[in-house]
Amino acid sequence: MVSIITETAFTDTKKEQPSMNKLQSFEQPFQPAAVREQTLLAKLPDFINFCQIESAYYRNHLQSVKASSVTTLEQLATIPVTRKSDLIRLQKECPPFGDINAESGRVSRVFRSPGPIFELESTSDDWWRMGNAFAAANFTSNDLVLNCLSYHMTPGGFIMDSGARACGARVIPAGPGQTEQQLEIIEMLRPTAYSGTPSFLNIILNKADEQGRDVTSINKALVTGEALPETLQQEFLHRGILVKQAYASADIGLIAYESERNEGLVVAEDIIVEIVRPGSGAPVANGEIGEVVVTSFNRDYPLIRFATGDLSAFVSQTTSCGRTNKRLKGWLGRADQTAKVKGMFVHPEQIESIRDKYETLFKLRLNITQHNNNDVMSLQCEVDFTVLSVDEQQTLSVALAETLRAVTNLSGTVELVTQGSLANDGKVIDDLRSGLLP
Amino acid sequence: MVSIITETAFTDTKKEQPSMNKLQSFEQPFQPAAVREQTLLAKLPDFINFCQIESAYYRNHLQSVKASSVTTLEQLATIPVTRKSDLIRLQKECPPFGDINAESGRVSRVFRSPGPIFELESTSDDWWRMGNAFAAANFTSNDLVLNCLSYHMTPGGFIMDSGARACGARVIPAGPGQTEQQLEIIEMLRPTAYSGTPSFLNIILNKADEQGRDVTSINKALVTGEALPETLQQEFLHRGILVKQAYASADIGLIAYESERNEGLVVAEDIIVEIVRPGSGAPVANGEIGEVVVTSFNRDYPLIRFATGDLSAFVSQTTSCGRTNKRLKGWLGRADQTAKVKGMFVHPEQIESIRDKYETLFKLRLNITQHNNNDVMSLQCEVDFTVLSVDEQQTLSVALAETLRAVTNLSGTVELVTQGSLANDGKVIDDLRSGLLP
Repeated sequence: MVSIITETAFTDTKKEQPSMNKLQSFEQPFQPAAVREQTLLAKLPDFINFCQIESAYYRNHLQSVKASSVTTLEQLATIPVTRKSDLIRLQKECPPFGDINAESGRVSRVFRSPGPIFELESTSDDWWRMGNAFAAANFTSNDLVLNCLSYHMTPGGFIMDSGARACGARVIPAGPGQTEQQLEIIEMLRPTAYSGTPSFLNIILNKADEQGRDVTSINKALVTGEALPETLQQEFLHRGILVKQAYASADIGLIAYESERNEGLVVAEDIIVEIVRPGSGAPVANGEIGEVVVTSFNRDYPLIRFATGDLSAFVSQTTSCGRTNKRLKGWLGRADQTAKVKGMFVHPEQIESIRDKYETLFKLRLNITQHNNNDVMSLQCEVDFTVLSVDEQQTLSVALAETLRAVTNLSGTVELVTQGSLANDGKVIDDLRSGLLP
Repeated sequence: MVSIITETAFTDTKKEQPSMNKLQSFEQPFQPAAVREQTLLAKLPDFINFCQIESAYYRNHLQSVKASSVTTLEQLATIPVTRKSDLIRLQKECPPFGDINAESGRVSRVFRSPGPIFELESTSDDWWRMGNAFAAANFTSNDLVLNCLSYHMTPGGFIMDSGARACGARVIPAGPGQTEQQLEIIEMLRPTAYSGTPSFLNIILNKADEQGRDVTSINKALVTGEALPETLQQEFLHRGILVKQAYASADIGLIAYESERNEGLVVAEDIIVEIVRPGSGAPVANGEIGEVVVTSFNRDYPLIRFATGDLSAFVSQTTSCGRTNKRLKGWLGRADQTAKVKGMFVHPEQIESIRDKYETLFKLRLNITQHNNNDVMSLQCEVDFTVLSVDEQQTLSVALAETLRAVTNLSGTVELVTQGSLANDGKVIDDLRSGLLP
């Protein structure tokens, strides 16, 4: 069911138009994919060089990288990643931004996300590049948007606010609480659109039902920050609200966004997204689940191979909307699979370091179970049995068990399995103990 | 005690500079007063004409005004006021902004203040013109500001945010709650400045004392939204925090701001402030207390003789900082003195309408008391006894009592008093009944 656009209290005022600059930016999603890829790759040498000069963090972190030689995705994949999970430590050592920010960069606002992790906003409009996501969700200068992410401490409210305004829409900075007042505002101002979490939209709609309030002015939404369950999406559609999703983060801004339903999320313009095996910087095969790694060309807060900690996969499906960029399957879980075994931490990076030591290994997966209240580790290793003799298999298994102990200080069994037999779920460590806190 | 500016976590990053445009704007407070007044008065004819064309509200409200003839303060004083207390009704009739906004105006954000009263922000930087207030409070591009007004629904957070950033300062949008997290942020980011209410600054400082937390990085503050009691100002100074006050409202933006202590509040550039007798549009004598009436030249949301509902007075004292504009005494109470007498509303406008009927009257004051649980009204009227015979006095008293009854539908006594004998406190209605709700 598609809702009818209702007249709002604003129809008598003249509408804002996005500037030409922004309209041009919104046309980029339809450029040929090869042109986009070449444009982005061509920017890498200069950008890496900029970071090595302008950021104390990258000066050290990328000191062995020859910027001019990084012109392909393969060469990009050789550069060390920077993990979001390291930000708390990096920022403590070099407050406030771990020296990742460019020394010439501008800082206009400073935010604090849980962790604490600090983020910045610079002075340019739509600094988080959200405009394309709102445009794909049909937000225009005719819309009045009820924005229900918080503007306090975390940047969520500002991220959505600046994206909606980049489309010329007007924003009510409503925040994520005071449901009664939200209903009053909706009835009096008749906003046409919502931005925020899907669960808070649901809370507003249910409260309106309870109290017999009129919230039918809302006919579109851009949601973020949570998964959007199919049942909830259906419920919104049933109410005449066309909901699209945006995948964004406080440090990167827009990563990917929905254009058509069930066609995945279009990767944002102006960034390079890779999917890598968790714990490594190595890209997975196309379509395989792994960690989302982003290179954004932001000259205030440059991120080169920034490992988000989120799992996703590329989808190969073509799209009906004409947007040409790669698509992500959406958010498929957290990539950080660090587990505590017999009181000791085991990290995906340690398991991946085992793979680096043996040329004959494909994927690895460490299964953690319990037996008689003892933690048990079992390492599954994909090999090509057609090139290994039985003796070689036995020698490899023994060597792997020794390496596992050396790397983790814990003993575990080793099982060789057929190449391609391990599940495509992005898991390097699978904690199968039930009811246990990590 | 003046605090020492402490090094912050930000000293290693390059500082933003306000644009030339803004620096020029900040120099205006030092222009000759006569130049400012002439510049503002010269803008009136064109601006009134603009409002009569672009705003449906003013087209009607100012239909009898000949725009080209309004070039002096005296002529401005003949134009009808628009009362803030009428906004709820006007906005209900013509949502969302009572058609006061210009049809060509741009709307970027829409806010909801208690009432509800809706306000707007347009697309330009520092739309509320707060930069001068922050500059006078010594905010510069070296400052990191903890901004503790709310950004949700009401515009307070954005008003302070845009003003601080107009000075090149960086802002932490912290909001007015979560004191624990505020302390954590202060310790980690070491902000140099605070903006918000004085009472919340006090809450933060006391909580820091209780918990032994370090909040000494804060050495300046711009406070607003509440009166700043002398004891609290002393307490802040004692802690090494130099606090200045800003008088602003959600519809007008900056009205006046403190530059030097105990020298009143400097009227903002680019607006005309009048002090009028509550209930009338007539300016009081210089130095007399009355209602603050503002004409702002904002072409998105034009306000011509907007009666704020606040009481203040001009101070004649010269200033040591070199700023040349008129000064206000600060906020001296609410001008809306509507009272309920024997179940009927009596408005200051009604009392002022009595004065208009008699040439011999100066100030009027309606005192409301109780006797044997009955409301009693007594109208004090200033006259020049040297020009009135005893007979004339008696006739006048009888006539006034009749007019009072005709205007209010209530009876009351009349007392003639000597010109200049009524208190200079801006009161037209003085409700002396204790312990009664209006």
